[in-house]
Amino acid sequence: MKVTVVGAGAVGASCAEYIAIKNFASEVVLLDIKEGYAEGKAMDLMQTASLNGFDTKITGTTGDYSKTAGSDITVITSGIPRKPGMTREELIGINAGIVKTVATSLIEHSPNTIIIVVSNPMDTMTYLVHKATDLPKSRIIGMGGALDSARFKYRLAEALGAPISDVDGMVIGGHSDTGMVPLTRLATRNSVPVSEFISEDRLQQVAEDTKVGGATLTKLLGTSAWYAPGAAVSGLVQAIACDQKKIYPCSVLLEGEYGLNDLCIGAPVVLGRNGIEKIVEIELSDAEKTKLAESAEGVKKTNGLLEL
Amino acid sequence: MKVTVVGAGAVGASCAEYIAIKNFASEVVLLDIKEGYAEGKAMDLMQTASLNGFDTKITGTTGDYSKTAGSDITVITSGIPRKPGMTREELIGINAGIVKTVATSLIEHSPNTIIIVVSNPMDTMTYLVHKATDLPKSRIIGMGGALDSARFKYRLAEALGAPISDVDGMVIGGHSDTGMVPLTRLATRNSVPVSEFISEDRLQQVAEDTKVGGATLTKLLGTSAWYAPGAAVSGLVQAIACDQKKIYPCSVLLEGEYGLNDLCIGAPVVLGRNGIEKIVEIELSDAEKTKLAESAEGVKKTNGLLEL
Amino acid sequence: MKVTVVGAGAVGASCAEYIAIKNFASEVVLLDIKEGYAEGKAMDLMQTASLNGFDTKITGTTGDYSKTAGSDITVITSGIPRKPGMTREELIGINAGIVKTVATSLIEHSPNTIIIVVSNPMDTMTYLVHKATDLPKSRIIGMGGALDSARFKYRLAEALGAPISDVDGMVIGGHSDTGMVPLTRLATRNSVPVSEFISEDRLQQVAEDTKVGGATLTKLLGTSAWYAPGAAVSGLVQAIACDQKKIYPCSVLLEGEYGLNDLCIGAPVVLGRNGIEKIVEIELSDAEKTKLAESAEGVKKTNGLLEL
Amino acid sequence: MKVTVVGAGAVGASCAEYIAIKNFASEVVLLDIKEGYAEGKAMDLMQTASLNGFDTKITGTTGDYSKTAGSDITVITSGIPRKPGMTREELIGINAGIVKTVATSLIEHSPNTIIIVVSNPMDTMTYLVHKATDLPKSRIIGMGGALDSARFKYRLAEALGAPISDVDGMVIGGHSDTGMVPLTRLATRNSVPVSEFISEDRLQQVAEDTKVGGATLTKLLGTSAWYAPGAAVSGLVQAIACDQKKIYPCSVLLEGEYGLNDLCIGAPVVLGRNGIEKIVEIELSDAEKTKLAESAEGVKKTNGLLEL
Repeated sequence: MKVTVVGAGAVGASCAEYIAIKNFASEVVLLDIKEGYAEGKAMDLMQTASLNGFDTKITGTTGDYSKTAGSDITVITSGIPRKPGMTREELIGINAGIVKTVATSLIEHSPNTIIIVVSNPMDTMTYLVHKATDLPKSRIIGMGGALDSARFKYRLAEALGAPISDVDGMVIGGHSDTGMVPLTRLATRNSVPVSEFISEDRLQQVAEDTKVGGATLTKLLGTSAWYAPGAAVSGLVQAIACDQKKIYPCSVLLEGEYGLNDLCIGAPVVLGRNGIEKIVEIELSDAEKTKLAESAEGVKKTNGLLEL
Repeated sequence: MKVTVVGAGAVGASCAEYIAIKNFASEVVLLDIKEGYAEGKAMDLMQTASLNGFDTKITGTTGDYSKTAGSDITVITSGIPRKPGMTREELIGINAGIVKTVATSLIEHSPNTIIIVVSNPMDTMTYLVHKATDLPKSRIIGMGGALDSARFKYRLAEALGAPISDVDGMVIGGHSDTGMVPLTRLATRNSVPVSEFISEDRLQQVAEDTKVGGATLTKLLGTSAWYAPGAAVSGLVQAIACDQKKIYPCSVLLEGEYGLNDLCIGAPVVLGRNGIEKIVEIELSDAEKTKLAESAEGVKKTNGLLEL
Repeated sequence: MKVTVVGAGAVGASCAEYIAIKNFASEVVLLDIKEGYAEGKAMDLMQTASLNGFDTKITGTTGDYSKTAGSDITVITSGIPRKPGMTREELIGINAGIVKTVATSLIEHSPNTIIIVVSNPMDTMTYLVHKATDLPKSRIIGMGGALDSARFKYRLAEALGAPISDVDGMVIGGHSDTGMVPLTRLATRNSVPVSEFISEDRLQQVAEDTKVGGATLTKLLGTSAWYAPGAAVSGLVQAIACDQKKIYPCSVLLEGEYGLNDLCIGAPVVLGRNGIEKIVEIELSDAEKTKLAESAEGVKKTNGLLEL
Repeated sequence: MKVTVVGAGAVGASCAEYIAIKNFASEVVLLDIKEGYAEGKAMDLMQTASLNGFDTKITGTTGDYSKTAGSDITVITSGIPRKPGMTREELIGINAGIVKTVATSLIEHSPNTIIIVVSNPMDTMTYLVHKATDLPKSRIIGMGGALDSARFKYRLAEALGAPISDVDGMVIGGHSDTGMVPLTRLATRNSVPVSEFISEDRLQQVAEDTKVGGATLTKLLGTSAWYAPGAAVSGLVQAIACDQKKIYPCSVLLEGEYGLNDLCIGAPVVLGRNGIEKIVEIELSDAEKTKLAESAEGVKKTNGLLEL
């Protein structure tokens, strides 16, 4: 199992790190255009192997895509990061060109790869990969919902005073402050609806905190966050590599599901060795449907900025 | 088991991350003086919990030491990082003041704590903590040798074309480019001396690469490395917290061992619930003894710069 | 962190194994009365350490309780196992005497210990420990619900065609075929009620399969099961040892909660460093309340067989 | 990655368990001829998934080899276990027939499989698979040396008072009380020769204890051991599945290496995606050479009992 991560910035390096720590892949190639940068990150990470107990081999390369040949799964994190105050949407002009080039280069050397898109605006970049390549839709996955759901669980646990492993919840919709639809109605603690433990007001606060989760961190850190994005990617990669059939909300090309068409947006999908093996349609409340429709509109608007 | 990490920079955050991933501690407190920074790192890291499968609670605080009260183990990573071209020694003026203040504050709130020192110049900062506090020597541990040994194993594995988990080796002496003493004579692959697999020349190259391991990464990354330092700390912390009695080479106050006195320098120690439970004296070759003596001289020279 | 497991049969050895694999404890003592048996199991398990990557030290002793001194947590698995066709209740005569002796001996050497009871009939044996010792109720925990919930999740996952990590559910009530109350109403897949994926009939089948989970295995294996019981115990032990504050349904002395009194029966509890830190009362449907009341009656009937 | 384990006895179930816990395989099929037995073990093991945190799917089958189709790696544990007092050699008559049938059936449904042989007498059974099938030698691996080395490390750690993760050592030669050659000369603690810590006499005792490691456990347990054999297999399986290139001493067909020919016996090999990727020839002392030659003679004698 060979995995390539393009972009050795904080997010890309975290992807490589957590994939390695889960210890199922034989090799992770980290590629960056900055001279020596991916090599440096790979080297530092490999020096943790004897201490963190993994046998995955991480290597770095400055832009040599031939080193990525035969990758089963590839991850695109390239693009400029969101700066404080900057919206995900403002990134589009620059990042579209980058993502298109990267995707094309990856597929050239790994024609059977499954691509996971992390670059922002994530839903639009995922859509772009659909438009710019010949890959079947099952092999193009946007990472957003897995991250947003992890942040939702964090905020739920915080509100409940519970450990995160005891809570569950899901965020669908677009991967943006206004686009996310945290499914508060379904959130649970050890399978018990959280409404038994916290008020509806507190739960709405959780939802709001979740939606601005990325922005909150950007403000605190002075740059966009990386640990949780990397962890989210590692979860998706392992679900695919180990054929786990787990459900994650991911950005996926919808063709009628949830009443939506011709866009990539967060919805629950089953991940296995073939990538997206199923789009899971769950029943939404009317309010949730409305929010998802609005979210889709927002994503489509951003998609409209793409020069396809 | 409560652990505090002071300094939420890249190294400190990596410490917190790997301690949490090993999932033995109940709580890790990350403290930094930069407003909101430790809180941000803690938040991002906690958002990986549902994906990386740990239940340790990571919290952040801007300088409030009362939050660290009752820490069984504390880690000092504070100080300015080494810039490209800068030696570890040049850092001393600034970092001594920081480390002293941090150590005093930690002990005030956790009088029974064991302190792990990461700040550079590491051996001198460890020595400083001895001089500036009343802690017994068993409870003051410098991290360097664990990191240097991890880097040695990385370079050995690279030379051997072997996975890192198949090699073993140890670096003693001072934690600096000129001070490290990689014990090449003892290095093994699956218990077999590496001399059966690589030439003496290649092995000497491994030693040289190891000694400049930190500097190599600083050049590639534009700042000093953090993953392996964080992993090394997490190994020490777990060895203590879980009373593992493992041997790690660490910076420890020598009082006659290895013919050295009144300095902290890297030597193999047994780590357990009481901190340093034993200094292990192994037989050195004459060449190794000479190198260690030279290394000690270098460390003492740096110690001389301290205003005690 | 020292843990003692009494009984080196299949269940006891699995407890020791999984506690060690989770790698948070310094020491696990396995005690059995059969000459050399605990020593043999401990030796075989320790020979996995280099391959399974843990540093917990497992030792065995033939009946020498002084070796268990200072245990933070102790686990009682002693008693004769349920044979095919035998009910848990039939075991009571023999096992009560064993459990009482074991508990007394453990407390004698570890007065501050938290006791986890696994011996069957589990709820009654837990109650017996309350009656026969002076331990506060927070430090006496019956393991059943954690196991029953694990089996419920297994059956849910099977019915859903989902991986087990994607489902959640809880079983309360007595730890017997007729006493278990699987809370089917609350069961979820990635936070979505399972009723969206399977029919009510199928869900009832899941509940029935769960209730006879132990008996099903006894029939297939020719003896009662051990892997999942051991894993359940290891989960409880880690939740306590690492102060995780996780909720597990466990057998706990009720004093008015859920309208029940003076018995130990499965209810959700928060586990932390002090043992049972809270009994969590969740809202039950009328049908669930009836079932729980019936279950409690059954447990009380068995308790009546105790000679206190 | 699909793995089949034939034989759901204690060893086979432990293989499945540890492969699953390492969480890299998508599926483990456990096959046994005893009605419902493999199904029972698989069910009990799967009920640990939510507690031990793995997503590998374990299934059981009563003798239906079609369920094993497409297995990347297969493990043969079948055969009757060694009873107290019985030598490994006495098992040969019965087990040869079983192993031949099992190997043929496995290859029929998984022509590209790599086979790991656990059944005793292990070296002879491995040799039998070579003779009875058309598999290339790289795809037939006897497990013994990995287990014997784990037991050697256990005894070394015991003698040193060190944790097992700090010691290293290797056992080559035949997998029998008289055939094992523990390479005491090479044994290390943190890369330091153990002769610095224990006497030569104590070290010879370690070697003797290692050689009778299996028999010692058989005496204590009343049946042959299973945890460490299962763990050893899981190590080999992961090394292959994840292409780790790790060295394990395994029973391998020698064709001139170590001066030996036409037998399978324990020697260090590099394991990767292609099975045995290299036989590693290390320099032996004259005494070790003599012992290995004697060991080979013993194995050949047992091989002579095969009706090929």
